[in-house]
Amino acid sequence: MAEQLTFPAASAAVLEHRLPPSGQASDDGSERPFVTLTFATSLDSTLSLAPGVRTRLSGPESKAMTHYLRSRHAAILVGVSTVLADDPALNCRIAGATRQPRPVILDPHLRWTPSRGDKVLQACRSGAGLAPFILTRVPTPELPPDGVELLRQHGGKFIHVRPSSVSRADGGRVRFDWRDVLDALRAQGLSSVMVEGGGHVINSLLDPAHHGLVDSVIVTIAPTWLGQGGTVVCPDRVLGSGGSPVPAARLSDVSWHPFGEDVVMCGRLRA
Amino acid sequence: MAEQLTFPAASAAVLEHRLPPSGQASDDGSERPFVTLTFATSLDSTLSLAPGVRTRLSGPESKAMTHYLRSRHAAILVGVSTVLADDPALNCRIAGATRQPRPVILDPHLRWTPSRGDKVLQACRSGAGLAPFILTRVPTPELPPDGVELLRQHGGKFIHVRPSSVSRADGGRVRFDWRDVLDALRAQGLSSVMVEGGGHVINSLLDPAHHGLVDSVIVTIAPTWLGQGGTVVCPDRVLGSGGSPVPAARLSDVSWHPFGEDVVMCGRLRA
Repeated sequence: MAEQLTFPAASAAVLEHRLPPSGQASDDGSERPFVTLTFATSLDSTLSLAPGVRTRLSGPESKAMTHYLRSRHAAILVGVSTVLADDPALNCRIAGATRQPRPVILDPHLRWTPSRGDKVLQACRSGAGLAPFILTRVPTPELPPDGVELLRQHGGKFIHVRPSSVSRADGGRVRFDWRDVLDALRAQGLSSVMVEGGGHVINSLLDPAHHGLVDSVIVTIAPTWLGQGGTVVCPDRVLGSGGSPVPAARLSDVSWHPFGEDVVMCGRLRA
Repeated sequence: MAEQLTFPAASAAVLEHRLPPSGQASDDGSERPFVTLTFATSLDSTLSLAPGVRTRLSGPESKAMTHYLRSRHAAILVGVSTVLADDPALNCRIAGATRQPRPVILDPHLRWTPSRGDKVLQACRSGAGLAPFILTRVPTPELPPDGVELLRQHGGKFIHVRPSSVSRADGGRVRFDWRDVLDALRAQGLSSVMVEGGGHVINSLLDPAHHGLVDSVIVTIAPTWLGQGGTVVCPDRVLGSGGSPVPAARLSDVSWHPFGEDVVMCGRLRA
């Protein structure tokens, strides 16, 4: 049996108003899902020691918090780079969880090929998680038949996001428009989503164009400096009306909560 | 009269064991000064929006803490880039401070030319601060006579650190060896020093070669992301015995203290 984590009720109470309503029905009529942006960095805002290297940053208390947060969202979302780097189970291992979140993977060009040995599918087969929904711009007729069938057997699927709505090109990399992503989740009845990473996904949501889409921000900071060369959280530079740089993102309604050796910061992005 | 800051006694008590002994005599026989490394960054570990741009990051509570910390050290040390960028007063504006710290400026190549209008000399003339000691590798006969005289009138001076002990070259930039710097301070009877910045100075002390020289680390984090292009705190990459990157610096004995909207982290670098 997989490790079971526990999260103290007192800590959960502190986070309660940062989270989607716990009794929220999957079809509450809201226009888009409740979005929580959450991740863990070092003091030098680094997610991992090098691209593609899984790095254990936060302590056991913070890990339990992450799984508690997963229990409170209908979906958890990561970019394909995180899947390729970490082979994550993308499930909830909190003791007493009554439902599993739906893993959502952003993979516009289908860089990932699902296989039976992937932890996310293993967790699904053992009843400890759900199969992923993969958002892609690859048209349905061009999807790999084996992958389609494997996902179908596990209860997952590919979801085509039309190329016409893929609006953002960045260094030759075509990205989804976040509004299209959230529309796609809403169309699947997913009323809340916890966005976990990796660097590209996080930095994109921290861009001022997307602040209005984010309902809650929960960041864990571990007391270490990883040093140069890692994957960093640092949004693109933003210039003010006078042409000088201004802060890319400010938080309001901020609270800090020491969790073991780490600290957890909660806040809201100003729209 | 300059703004006077107050720092709550309860907050001071929390920090007490992170600081040099308050009754420490200037000649206590210890081999080197007590070193506190302290600075404020954004969530993306950035000190300023762009090199040379002064950026107000932390709130009034954190600012008061900085000045309280200054009141508890014999010296405060900054690199010359900080002086050129900020024209700082480098004094202590906490209410009831009974002594001023000695400003120490690391300026190996004498990029800074002191003048009467500098805030640090203005503060000195008004009785609100001390004149700086400037550590340089420029030999005494080559010092600018006007600058020498101006500093002398204010009670400051140039201190020559011999080129033979300037041991570290980094990208063509010759740096002081920290042991020589601390020896020079000790020779001046300065038993404690608060190292405040800027980026080069901080990153250098976070290098594992220097962890044993640092007694206390106090970092303020403001709940904002400044974005790409700023001056960042991020030490050089460190490789482990297997050739893979390892964390550059870990802290032990960590505590986190919310101060207004910011958080203050205290810890020790493992030697």
